[in-house]
Amino acid sequence: MKIVIDGMGGDNAPQSTVEGACLAVNEYGVDIILTGDETTLKNELKKHKYDESKIKIVHTTEVITNDEKPVYAIRRKTDSSMVVALKMVKNKEADVIISAGSTGALLSGGVFIVKRIKGISRPCICAALPTISGGVVMLSDTGANVDCNTQNLRDFAIMTDIYAKRVINIENPKVALANIGTEDGKGNDLVKSAFEEIKSIKGINFIGNMETREILNGVCDIVICDGFIGNIILKTVEGSVFSLFKKLKEVMTSTTKSKIGALMMKSELKKIKDLLDYSSYGGAPFLGVDGGVIKAHGSSDSRAIKNAVKQAIKLCEGNVVEEIKKNIK
Amino acid sequence: MKIVIDGMGGDNAPQSTVEGACLAVNEYGVDIILTGDETTLKNELKKHKYDESKIKIVHTTEVITNDEKPVYAIRRKTDSSMVVALKMVKNKEADVIISAGSTGALLSGGVFIVKRIKGISRPCICAALPTISGGVVMLSDTGANVDCNTQNLRDFAIMTDIYAKRVINIENPKVALANIGTEDGKGNDLVKSAFEEIKSIKGINFIGNMETREILNGVCDIVICDGFIGNIILKTVEGSVFSLFKKLKEVMTSTTKSKIGALMMKSELKKIKDLLDYSSYGGAPFLGVDGGVIKAHGSSDSRAIKNAVKQAIKLCEGNVVEEIKKNIK
Repeated sequence: MKIVIDGMGGDNAPQSTVEGACLAVNEYGVDIILTGDETTLKNELKKHKYDESKIKIVHTTEVITNDEKPVYAIRRKTDSSMVVALKMVKNKEADVIISAGSTGALLSGGVFIVKRIKGISRPCICAALPTISGGVVMLSDTGANVDCNTQNLRDFAIMTDIYAKRVINIENPKVALANIGTEDGKGNDLVKSAFEEIKSIKGINFIGNMETREILNGVCDIVICDGFIGNIILKTVEGSVFSLFKKLKEVMTSTTKSKIGALMMKSELKKIKDLLDYSSYGGAPFLGVDGGVIKAHGSSDSRAIKNAVKQAIKLCEGNVVEEIKKNIK
Repeated sequence: MKIVIDGMGGDNAPQSTVEGACLAVNEYGVDIILTGDETTLKNELKKHKYDESKIKIVHTTEVITNDEKPVYAIRRKTDSSMVVALKMVKNKEADVIISAGSTGALLSGGVFIVKRIKGISRPCICAALPTISGGVVMLSDTGANVDCNTQNLRDFAIMTDIYAKRVINIENPKVALANIGTEDGKGNDLVKSAFEEIKSIKGINFIGNMETREILNGVCDIVICDGFIGNIILKTVEGSVFSLFKKLKEVMTSTTKSKIGALMMKSELKKIKDLLDYSSYGGAPFLGVDGGVIKAHGSSDSRAIKNAVKQAIKLCEGNVVEEIKKNIK
């Protein structure tokens, strides 16, 4: 098993990617390839203790930034750390790519370089939202496909179900459809037809429609929606939680009494923050392409990169790509 | 000015509707009509002190419940408290209807009984979300139209702009489009075309795309989206805030130390809860029909009903319906 990390991708790269790689090598004993400027990466590697036989550098001269048009960047910057890493997955020199770089570029590269699995209408990006009950809920799609049809949503359900079983170890994942009411027959045209379609998939534990007010309560394991809706849900949850914490912090420091109160509750409040901390769940898998592609958060620190490696290992060990091929036939 | 309240609509009716009407009469000196079972309403009214000349009862024999199919209920239950109230608006015997009853039935009744304003492609329901900066953001549409076209979103923008100016007294409302990125050209097909359309409306302060992670931060006054997305956003925000408060309560009472800490912060925490309390903002106006229609929350208490009356008064005084007619031509 070989995992390639886009060494230059992300707000904190290459410090985070290199340190994350070292942490992962030490903890999981996995083989890692880092793509990026050799001198820069070597200088970073010098700062850490790790088994040198386990990390290989592949030198690249370009970097794709968040400002670039994804498809254009992927086609033009052929010697970028991301494109070279994607090609290694395509050529089976690596099993999984992890990148904290431009989401758009990684998804375009997934489709144009790694290529879609035959029979999959559209690959999907699948984010894990931590719930207040201590678990996660997988949200598919969260932005790869802003306009979807019924077939797309059906494929998202099949792929995410496999991922949840094989990577998150959920035995019989509860699959729900994001909707504006729980009754059958609710929703817009797409959701109504997707309901019937997903219901008919054999081996899927479809529990029906779910209102997104329940999303953080852990009532299901997988929520299916088009990428526009999924992205809206993800950002609305993140934003609401962030805004509320911001306001909490503000009122907590507003009077002497509340400051003391806040101090006494500090460790308990930290528990909630940790519970809802996205970075502990690694990255978002891009499912439906012919190789492992994991998008780590742009602001990933070394711990988040390490967790993404753990996820990549599970993706390989669980044969997720092969299993998707088998189930889509 | 006359306001009709669906006396039997809502989880807490008729107690909440009757008490709310009395509170409103005492505070605003407005004329109110209550529809519903005369004996029941009279018994409730006996519990309160109010100017008896200001409240009139119109006896009805039926009640529409949440379980009924909206269109069917509106057509069949012609002597229900909701339908009779809607007809009074249609016949100009009342200026505004307030109902905490079935949302679906009220919207159907708005369209089939009060009727659409000529030139409006689709009426929209417009919810006010409290922000952490102490203001509100209006979200249109939040569920009346689950499948929308560009013209619909354009109409929502024009109508909500008028409402924000004339009812919430915002001088030059900042109008944004709910999207998955802030750059121009982002989003799905509908949002891309709506962007150009809304941008071209004269007199609208269009600030472009907004990511919903910003929704509670008060960065704009109006967010435009189709009813499916709007309903998802509304419920995701409500759900996230609710889940987080639930978790907060849990950890606050988990140890003796945190209990004391929580006690010391109690009044500050209550401030946040009050800030995000939806009921203080009255109900959601149904804009684009030829009369005032306000949907109060199903669980409205008397204070929420009173606030909806205040909103109804502003809707009349601001000539919102006439202004929409003028601007849509």
